[in-house]
Parts: sequence; structure tokens; C-alpha cells
Amino acid sequence: MKLNKSDIENLERRYRGTFINSLAGYKQTFLIGTQTVEGFQNLAIFNSLIHFGANPALYGVLFRPDTVQRDTLKNILDTGFYTFNFIETKDWEKAHQTSAKYETGVSEFEAVGFQAEVSDTFFAPFVKESPIKIGLKFESKIDIPLNGTILVIGSLETIEVAENLVSADGFVDFEKANILGSIGLDAYFEPKILGRLSYAKTDKWPQKI
Amino acid sequence: MKLNKSDIENLERRYRGTFINSLAGYKQTFLIGTQTVEGFQNLAIFNSLIHFGANPALYGVLFRPDTVQRDTLKNILDTGFYTFNFIETKDWEKAHQTSAKYETGVSEFEAVGFQAEVSDTFFAPFVKESPIKIGLKFESKIDIPLNGTILVIGSLETIEVAENLVSADGFVDFEKANILGSIGLDAYFEPKILGRLSYAKTDKWPQKI
Repeated sequence: MKLNKSDIENLERRYRGTFINSLAGYKQTFLIGTQTVEGFQNLAIFNSLIHFGANPALYGVLFRPDTVQRDTLKNILDTGFYTFNFIETKDWEKAHQTSAKYETGVSEFEAVGFQAEVSDTFFAPFVKESPIKIGLKFESKIDIPLNGTILVIGSLETIEVAENLVSADGFVDFEKANILGSIGLDAYFEPKILGRLSYAKTDKWPQKI
Repeated sequence: MKLNKSDIENLERRYRGTFINSLAGYKQTFLIGTQTVEGFQNLAIFNSLIHFGANPALYGVLFRPDTVQRDTLKNILDTGFYTFNFIETKDWEKAHQTSAKYETGVSEFEAVGFQAEVSDTFFAPFVKESPIKIGLKFESKIDIPLNGTILVIGSLETIEVAENLVSADGFVDFEKANILGSIGLDAYFEPKILGRLSYAKTDKWPQKI
């Protein structure tokens, strides 16, 4: 099956959405926890995590301005703080359900059945059931003129992860932690790790480490 | 294990790199094929594919200016065309090996053993062994002032994928295609798909589709 630009443009709208989204491949699934200035909690599923750098540690997320995710974006810009919560595979249906269009006053924590974990030292709520919890501070908003998407970059303020998931060199074992991943808009997976490979050198084939 | 911002900053440099990179979770692994104006071919592994939109179909990739990946960036900006090639799990070591610092005149296709597929109608080379091949046209370069990274967005010019991998609604089956994924800088995985879930509605729990 070989398609050129005009073939792609002429695909039926939903078929094209499913096709182009799934072709973007494996994604990290995560729930973003935020809170309004008035204290209402919000939780929504995302799949557009972008690693921007390790020093300083920066993660980005891409927003489409025309979706239910606007509550999350507004809360980040209003309050400056938000959380990334990775989810176990057993909670995949609950995580997916946070994408339903609940009204602004409704907490998705309560609606889908995740527990909010509130801290004295961090403004936004975490997901108690999450094995990897990251607290971020808003750093930069970048508008993408090409199609109106909005890139939000934050710096890492806090990280909580079970000690037994972190190897001696800092690698976090997502397979052992049963972390949920996604493909496209509605498919979810668990991983089987093939291994890790040594730093590539021109004069030596990579070895399993 | 709970770390705050200054704990993260004080981690040993390589430990922090491995930790923060792996915490970004599941990534699509892909090889970018480019060609210099003079016709030298280049192939390099990336893991920062960003889906920007389905109509028009736009994919992004993030570049760090201080790495071996500069050849790829230069070729994209010089020529305007490049290819994304997803890789089968059996080729994981060859794909990883493209990250070795080969000199500019050396073709990674030859050095690691992938076949270049050249087309009359597309400037950049594809990877013949790849089950999903995407040809892109450069659209936009966005500098990220926060840390000097560079976001490159391209529009889809061509897509080639085996017919039997695409379901009736446009979903591409990455498990069936044995597509390689990665975590962090050196870990690779294959997926086990849990299923797909119906569009989430506030009054109905998602169903497997």
C-alpha cells in the first residue's frame, strides 16, 4: 500500500486520523494532574511526552487547542504546576476514560476512580496509584503556527519512583513496573524488553549490557 | 525513591542522563534517511517522533545541536527531504549501530548493512528492509531557546506500508509488523497489544473494539 500526498489528503477523515495517528508509533501514556486556581482538580490522558533534555531536566507535551484537553492547558498556564503520572496496565480502561468530555467542575479522579494524592509542597495533584509520579513547573509555551498546536515545556521539580525499579546506572525498568503504553488514539500495549545495547562505536558491534 | 529538583541536579551526570531519558518512557525508534546535495547518503537512529496533526499530516523530530545527528539536520535543511523508516525487532543491533560517530563521507547504510532504496520521485533514500517507510518534506524549524534543541516539522509526501498491516479503519498493527520501540538511550522493546478501546463517553465505560 503506497500513498502519496494527495492520496493521504483524500482519505476519509476518520480513516486518515486513525492511520496517521497510529503511524506515529509507540507513545508513552500518562495522566496529567492539574488544579484550578479555585482548587478544582483535573485529570486527563495524554500521549505526546517529549524529552527535551536531562540537564536541566525538561519534558514537553503537545496540546491541540480544539479538544477537551483545554482544561489541562488552562490550569498549567494559570497555576504554573502540573503532574505526569504513568499508569499500570491493569488501569488502562480507567486511564482511557479520563478522555471523556467531563464538564469543567467534574473531577476526573472521582469520575473514573483514581485517588488524588495531594502534597503540602506541590500545588498540583498526583495519581496515588501511579508507580512513577513526576511534578513539573511550567517553563515555556511555544505556539506552532503551522497548525495551531501548542507545545508546553516544563522542568522537573519532583520525581517519585519505587527504588526496586531503578537499576544501578539510573535506568528505570518500565516492563517490571507494568507501565502502560499506547499506539494511535485508542490502542494500548505492554512491552517486552529485548535488552540494552552498549554505546555504539564505529569499530565495534554493540553488545548486550 | 523521591527526588526534588536539587537532588536531580546533583545526580552524577551519566546516571542523571540515563534516569531522565528512561523516565520519558516508550518511544518510537526510527531511522532517518537523508542525502547531501552532492549525493552522499546518511542514515541515523532517532527516538523523538512527534505527531503534530493528521490534516495536514505533520510529524516532528527533535534535534540536539551537539551530537552526531548534525549530518541529518544539515541534510534536511539543505535539501528539504528526508525519510522515516521503522525497523523490525530482528534488526535492533544494526539500527543501534547507526548511532556510532561515522565520518560525514561514510554511508551508515553500508557501514551497518541496510540497503538504500532510491526512488526517481523522492530525493532522500529509504531503508529497503523497513516495513513502514515515510517520505517527508521539510516545513518548519523551531528553535527552543530554553536549551538549544531544534524542532523540525515535516509534511507527509509518501507512505508505504504492507496492506496486511492496515485494518479496515486505518489502524496500523505495529505488533504484527514486529516494529522496534525503545526506552531511554539504549533499551529496546517489542509490544504486546492489550487491545483498542471505544471512544470515551461520560455516561459509558469504554469497551474493547
